[in-house]
Amino acid sequence: MTETERWLQAAEAAADVAACVVRPFFRAKLATQEKSDASPVTIADRTAEQAMRAVLAERLPEHGILGEEFGLDRPQARHRWVLDPIDGTRAFITGRPSFGILVALLEDGVPVLGVLDQPITGERWTARSGGTTSYRPGVLQGGRSDIGTRRCPALADAELSCTSPEMLQGDDLPRWTALRRQVKRASWGGDCYAYGLLALGQIDIIAECTMQPWDWAALVPVVEGAGGRITDWQGRPLRPDGDGTVLAVGDPALLGPAVDALAQRS
Amino acid sequence: MTETERWLQAAEAAADVAACVVRPFFRAKLATQEKSDASPVTIADRTAEQAMRAVLAERLPEHGILGEEFGLDRPQARHRWVLDPIDGTRAFITGRPSFGILVALLEDGVPVLGVLDQPITGERWTARSGGTTSYRPGVLQGGRSDIGTRRCPALADAELSCTSPEMLQGDDLPRWTALRRQVKRASWGGDCYAYGLLALGQIDIIAECTMQPWDWAALVPVVEGAGGRITDWQGRPLRPDGDGTVLAVGDPALLGPAVDALAQRS
Repeated sequence: MTETERWLQAAEAAADVAACVVRPFFRAKLATQEKSDASPVTIADRTAEQAMRAVLAERLPEHGILGEEFGLDRPQARHRWVLDPIDGTRAFITGRPSFGILVALLEDGVPVLGVLDQPITGERWTARSGGTTSYRPGVLQGGRSDIGTRRCPALADAELSCTSPEMLQGDDLPRWTALRRQVKRASWGGDCYAYGLLALGQIDIIAECTMQPWDWAALVPVVEGAGGRITDWQGRPLRPDGDGTVLAVGDPALLGPAVDALAQRS
Repeated sequence: MTETERWLQAAEAAADVAACVVRPFFRAKLATQEKSDASPVTIADRTAEQAMRAVLAERLPEHGILGEEFGLDRPQARHRWVLDPIDGTRAFITGRPSFGILVALLEDGVPVLGVLDQPITGERWTARSGGTTSYRPGVLQGGRSDIGTRRCPALADAELSCTSPEMLQGDDLPRWTALRRQVKRASWGGDCYAYGLLALGQIDIIAECTMQPWDWAALVPVVEGAGGRITDWQGRPLRPDGDGTVLAVGDPALLGPAVDALAQRS
C-alpha cells in the first residue's frame, strides 16, 4: 500500500466514525451553544471531531490535526489533517440533509486529499490531488450519479450558489452582487454539499466568504478532481492565511470571467 | 370507505405517479425554460403535472384541477385540486433533494387535504383538515421521525427559515428584516421541504412571499395537523385571492409576536 493510499484509508475511517456519531443526533432534540463568532455548535459536532481525532492520531501519530472545535495539535508537522465535523451546523440543526463531514490532509499547507461525507443520504465524495474524484451515491432514489463538472463557458448560462446572504458583509456584498447580475440564476443554502453538487455537474459557480480552512480544505481536491477550479475571489490558490473568500467553478473557462465580475462593485 | 378517505387515496396516487415521473430526471442533464415570471420549468414539471391530472380526473371527474403549469379545469367545481408538480424547481435543477410534489384539495377555497412528497428521499407528509399529519420517513439514515411541531413560545429562541432573499422585494424586505432581528437564527433554501421540517419540530418560523396557491395550499393541513399555524403576514387565513405572503409557526404562541414584528419596518 502506498503512503497516499494509507492516508486515504485513514481519511475514510475518520469520516466513517464521524458519520456514526452524527447520525443519531439528526432531527433529535438538541441543545445548541453559540460560539464566539455567533455560529452554533452542538454535542454532535464536538463528539464527532473527538472521534475523528482519535482515529487519525492512532493511525498517523506523526501528523498534525486542526479541527474547527478543538484547535491545533502538533503545529510543526509537515502533514496536517484539517477537520470540520459538521460543515453547515445551521442545516444540521434544522434537519436538512445538506450538511457535511469534511476531512482534508494538507502537505506544507496545500490540500492533497479530501473527503466530503453526507451521513444522512450516505453520499460521499473522495479525492486526492492529481486524481479523479470518486462519488458514492448513497441511498437517494432516482437520478444519475456521474461524477464530473459540466461544461458552461459563459457566465450568462451559469447556476450560482451561496449558502447564506448573511455571510455577504461589507465590501463582499457589492462584489457578490456584481457576479450575481451576470449569471443566469442563484440558489441558496447548501454549505459544502453545494460543492459536491458542482462536482456532479449540477451547479456552475459558488462564491462564498468568511470561510475558514476547515470549510474549504477538503473541497479543493474534490472540485479539482471533478474537472473544476477552486480559488479565492482573486483567482489565487486557497491557503490557510488567505482572505476567507472562496470561488469554485465547474468549467475552468468560467474562472476568469467570475474573477473579473467579483472585482467590480455592483 | 368515506369520501375523505377516497380523496386521500387519490391524492396519494397523484403524488405517487408524480414521484415516478420526476425521479429519473433528478440530476440528469435537463433543459430549463424560463416562464413569464422568470421562474424555471422543465419537462419533469410538465410531465409530472400531466400525470397527476390524469390520475385525479379518472378518479374524481367531477372535481376541478388547478396546476402550476397547465392552469384551471372545471372552474365551477366546489372541490378543486391544487397541484405543484415540483415546488422548488431551482432546488430540483441544482440537484438538491429539498424540492417537493404538492397535492391539495380545496373545498370552497379552503384546503381540506394536503400531501407533501419528496421523491428522492422518499419522505412524505400527509394530512386532512382536523386530523393529525402523518409522516413517512423514507430512506434517510439516522435521526428521529416523530411528527409534531416543537414548543418555542419566544421569538428570541426561534429558528427562522426562508427559501431565498430574492423573493423579498419592495416593502416585504424591511418587514422580513424586522422579524429576522427578533429571532435567534435564519437559514436559507428549502421551499416546501422547510414546512415539512417545521412539522417535524426542526424549524420554528417560516416567512415567505410571492407565494401562489399551489405553493401553500397543501402546506395548510400539513402544518396545522402537526400542531402549527399557517396564515398570511397579517395573521389572516390563506386564501387563493390573498396577497401572496405566508407565515408558518410551529408553536401557535409565536403567531402574534411574528405578525407584530412583520407589521414593523426594520
